[in-house]
Amino acid sequence: MAAPEEQMAALSVADGAAAAEGGKPKKEKKEKKPKADKPKQGGGEGVKGEKKKETKLGLTAKKDGDFGEWFSQVVVESEMISYYDVSGCYILRPYSYAIWDEIKNWFDARIKELGVQNAYFPLFITEDVLMTEKEHVASFAPEVAWVTRSGSSDLERPIAIRPTSETVMYPYYAQWIRSHRDLPLRLNQWTNVVRWEFKHPTPFIRSREFLWQEGHTCFATKEEADAEVYQILDLYRCVYEELLAVPVMKGIKSSKEKFAGALYTTTVEAFIPQNGRGIQGATSHCLGQNFSKMFGIEFETEDKTRAHAWQNSWGLTTRSIGVMVMTHGDDKGVVIPPRVAQVQVVVIPIPQAKLGDEAAAAMKERAAAIADALKAAGVRVNTDTRDNYTPGWKYNYWELRGVPLRIELGPRDMEGGCAMLARRDTGAKESVAWGELAARVPALLDQIQSDLFTKARAAFDGCVETALTWDDFMAALDRKHMVLAPWCDEEEAEEEVKKKSASKEAMGAKTLCLPLEQPDLPEGTKCFVTGKPAKNWALWGRSY
Amino acid sequence: MAAPEEQMAALSVADGAAAAEGGKPKKEKKEKKPKADKPKQGGGEGVKGEKKKETKLGLTAKKDGDFGEWFSQVVVESEMISYYDVSGCYILRPYSYAIWDEIKNWFDARIKELGVQNAYFPLFITEDVLMTEKEHVASFAPEVAWVTRSGSSDLERPIAIRPTSETVMYPYYAQWIRSHRDLPLRLNQWTNVVRWEFKHPTPFIRSREFLWQEGHTCFATKEEADAEVYQILDLYRCVYEELLAVPVMKGIKSSKEKFAGALYTTTVEAFIPQNGRGIQGATSHCLGQNFSKMFGIEFETEDKTRAHAWQNSWGLTTRSIGVMVMTHGDDKGVVIPPRVAQVQVVVIPIPQAKLGDEAAAAMKERAAAIADALKAAGVRVNTDTRDNYTPGWKYNYWELRGVPLRIELGPRDMEGGCAMLARRDTGAKESVAWGELAARVPALLDQIQSDLFTKARAAFDGCVETALTWDDFMAALDRKHMVLAPWCDEEEAEEEVKKKSASKEAMGAKTLCLPLEQPDLPEGTKCFVTGKPAKNWALWGRSY
Repeated sequence: MAAPEEQMAALSVADGAAAAEGGKPKKEKKEKKPKADKPKQGGGEGVKGEKKKETKLGLTAKKDGDFGEWFSQVVVESEMISYYDVSGCYILRPYSYAIWDEIKNWFDARIKELGVQNAYFPLFITEDVLMTEKEHVASFAPEVAWVTRSGSSDLERPIAIRPTSETVMYPYYAQWIRSHRDLPLRLNQWTNVVRWEFKHPTPFIRSREFLWQEGHTCFATKEEADAEVYQILDLYRCVYEELLAVPVMKGIKSSKEKFAGALYTTTVEAFIPQNGRGIQGATSHCLGQNFSKMFGIEFETEDKTRAHAWQNSWGLTTRSIGVMVMTHGDDKGVVIPPRVAQVQVVVIPIPQAKLGDEAAAAMKERAAAIADALKAAGVRVNTDTRDNYTPGWKYNYWELRGVPLRIELGPRDMEGGCAMLARRDTGAKESVAWGELAARVPALLDQIQSDLFTKARAAFDGCVETALTWDDFMAALDRKHMVLAPWCDEEEAEEEVKKKSASKEAMGAKTLCLPLEQPDLPEGTKCFVTGKPAKNWALWGRSY
Repeated sequence: MAAPEEQMAALSVADGAAAAEGGKPKKEKKEKKPKADKPKQGGGEGVKGEKKKETKLGLTAKKDGDFGEWFSQVVVESEMISYYDVSGCYILRPYSYAIWDEIKNWFDARIKELGVQNAYFPLFITEDVLMTEKEHVASFAPEVAWVTRSGSSDLERPIAIRPTSETVMYPYYAQWIRSHRDLPLRLNQWTNVVRWEFKHPTPFIRSREFLWQEGHTCFATKEEADAEVYQILDLYRCVYEELLAVPVMKGIKSSKEKFAGALYTTTVEAFIPQNGRGIQGATSHCLGQNFSKMFGIEFETEDKTRAHAWQNSWGLTTRSIGVMVMTHGDDKGVVIPPRVAQVQVVVIPIPQAKLGDEAAAAMKERAAAIADALKAAGVRVNTDTRDNYTPGWKYNYWELRGVPLRIELGPRDMEGGCAMLARRDTGAKESVAWGELAARVPALLDQIQSDLFTKARAAFDGCVETALTWDDFMAALDRKHMVLAPWCDEEEAEEEVKKKSASKEAMGAKTLCLPLEQPDLPEGTKCFVTGKPAKNWALWGRSY
């Protein structure tokens, strides 16, 4: 994570004018960029007026008020995102890219343990190959970006930019796989993909280009493929729950909602209470033999017969960072779980004018010593010694960026041989003796990580209602909740729910998933939509 | 690097038919793909005929014969590359991608120590922004791929795919940088870029999409920018010389050859003796204030004046892997330097039919124990226990893939408590007692790394000639050498050399660089082209 001191420059806010984001280069329309923040003079909390040039920090929108505007502001003001002059594309600034790096490093190590290898396949697909699997291409075709020109010459045939790489990879899998000895073949790549969507773009959550990993694997048997689907799904759950402290529910997608061309799709589903919308966190698909038949991925079995490979594909995107911001952020800014925070602790010395030079120097030295002790204990720490900002302004600055823990070191702390710890998530403070910091801080970071998850889990669980009838279902939806309801598992019923639950104010609901953990379904339970015998419990909701 | 055992499946060659590469999906033309290898029966060295289904391994082209064909074969047969059905695009298979990962991890850690942060900027650029810096765009415009359509609708305005990201990033740098306190700003990204070149495409060396890192930094002063240019250049030298064992020469590009829009370009230049061509290894540019003036990257200095930032950009690509293959490979296949080899050592037990089950089991156990001991010593080791191939076939298999060291364990070794080590680079063998392997193998890997470099360095140095006259210059070129010659440093002279040195058989020569280490230039030395007073020594050569 590199010397945090060095990062200060890049992270610092200009002292002459607020770096009002959202773009100098001319924009295309439609995007809900944060309302332009005019540079404001005057300070945040604790500013005594003596620093005229400080920029007002902070968000004008409230998370429980205009959630969309809050989100746009918080990702920009925290310097995670810059809006870009191609609509639906965003810049991932170092403060958010570092989180992606943490996710990447963790997930990459896990899949390598499973025997997956990384590779890189081209960005481009020829039209012919893209068209090989009809159901698959039909789903992606409207969103495909086409290169038709190089320099000033037209290409002979247009070339597609990958929206996902099944059709890029599988013709080659067909070449590489001949025998059962070539299986399993398990490849992954970390790449950018492009889906030229026309839905409302939102940073992290829905962008026309995004970063992801895509795993593409082949097995000799369905059993092996099935097992991997759920291994990977659990790794995705871990990324959300253990790294990002975001609760998810594991489930299977309805046949209407599954990946185009898949046999079945498993998913981890998250939920945003503020707008009552479910959001797909990551998906792990069993493709069955659909693609292997289309692309001719065949092998000779041990007993010399021919068989088609069983295939999976699975992907996790930078959307995960957006879900994390939505889950933990508050009116002061983002809140980053310690495990993925680039800066876990910021040390802020609080010198006062009346202190002599000697005392100020001692404080500075002590702050450095504290930072060194924490670094030695494996903590990612930054010391904010900038002399052109007040302590209060700095508190706001680091709160906006979601640093999990602040350590204040004031004159009284210097006398008492202690420092004040302030949690970003709860605001709780405690005084800790210098000698105990190296033990207390890592423990407290663990506590914060765990508390963030517990709180979010409680919120998630509080948003799941059970409904047996249409009226109860609609009432729960109107409370912005997810609804667990018995279902006949017929696509027509899902279509009907979508239509009937839509209104002028709200989109229709759909199945988020069929939860892997199914409640009891007593014989005779009826589908809440059709009244037919229910086959399972589905989790429904409005959704991103 | 993942469990090497697991990688076996993906790396193994089908036992029914040679996986003749170069493709099933229909290809565009022009590419020099390796001549189709028909599946061949029968074996390599050491095959006794008892294994009927073995595939013939190995290359038909000689490195010193048809070098181009040899290179195409070696990258495909070693499973580093697959040709792809979009001309000029290639698949980086796990065996080469792992090398890129090693380079990435090493370089990324080094630049983070310098204070550089990673970020991600979009793939797309609007036409307006791309056109901002005229000299820059003029150089890239003919190679830019344009997206003009999404789904079946034409875009309002075509959008370019980045050939490099100066114009993507700098409008935002202009927003982020207000004060000297915001400097330095040092960002890097690991991405794909697209240059739709019409020159002959070659795997790794010249492809229409490639992977690279691009660093883009801003400083308050030229001194700081200059210092970084050379820091980065030295990191590039380390990647080539210390990781890839490829000798390079550091230098400055002539003004004709520098990066479009740069103040000056520094380079590390490698050389391929077989075809007598120089190849640019990586470049570190000082952009001066050209771009900061075009894009308005201004800041308030400490004394409240306005100034334009000094900028650098620098990039290293997957081409480096190709140069490594060209440098060390031989007629048996690639030779991978130990520091970047995914598999550094392969252990091959040599069971014989006449051995009893017990002896065979003991041998298998011993091979596993050797592998474990080496892993514990930090060596990346694989054990080839496949029972459907002969030892000789396996030797060929791993030699083709360039694994630096083979450990053979035969019946006599079992008796003697030792194992036979065979170096990939020299073929030298030595017998080492089991107990000494964990110490000897890492030392031998270091030796191999160092010997590869020493040998390549000698070859490089042997290809540099000094010439003071045109005739000597042409004679050296015709010996497929680089030529160090005194030069007046005028662009017209370089144009003239290019024209005059071209023939039906060979392209014209150009300056590769002005070496940083300049030999003495006695007063009165004349330019070998124009006869004017020489200003410096330039290194000339035919070039990729």
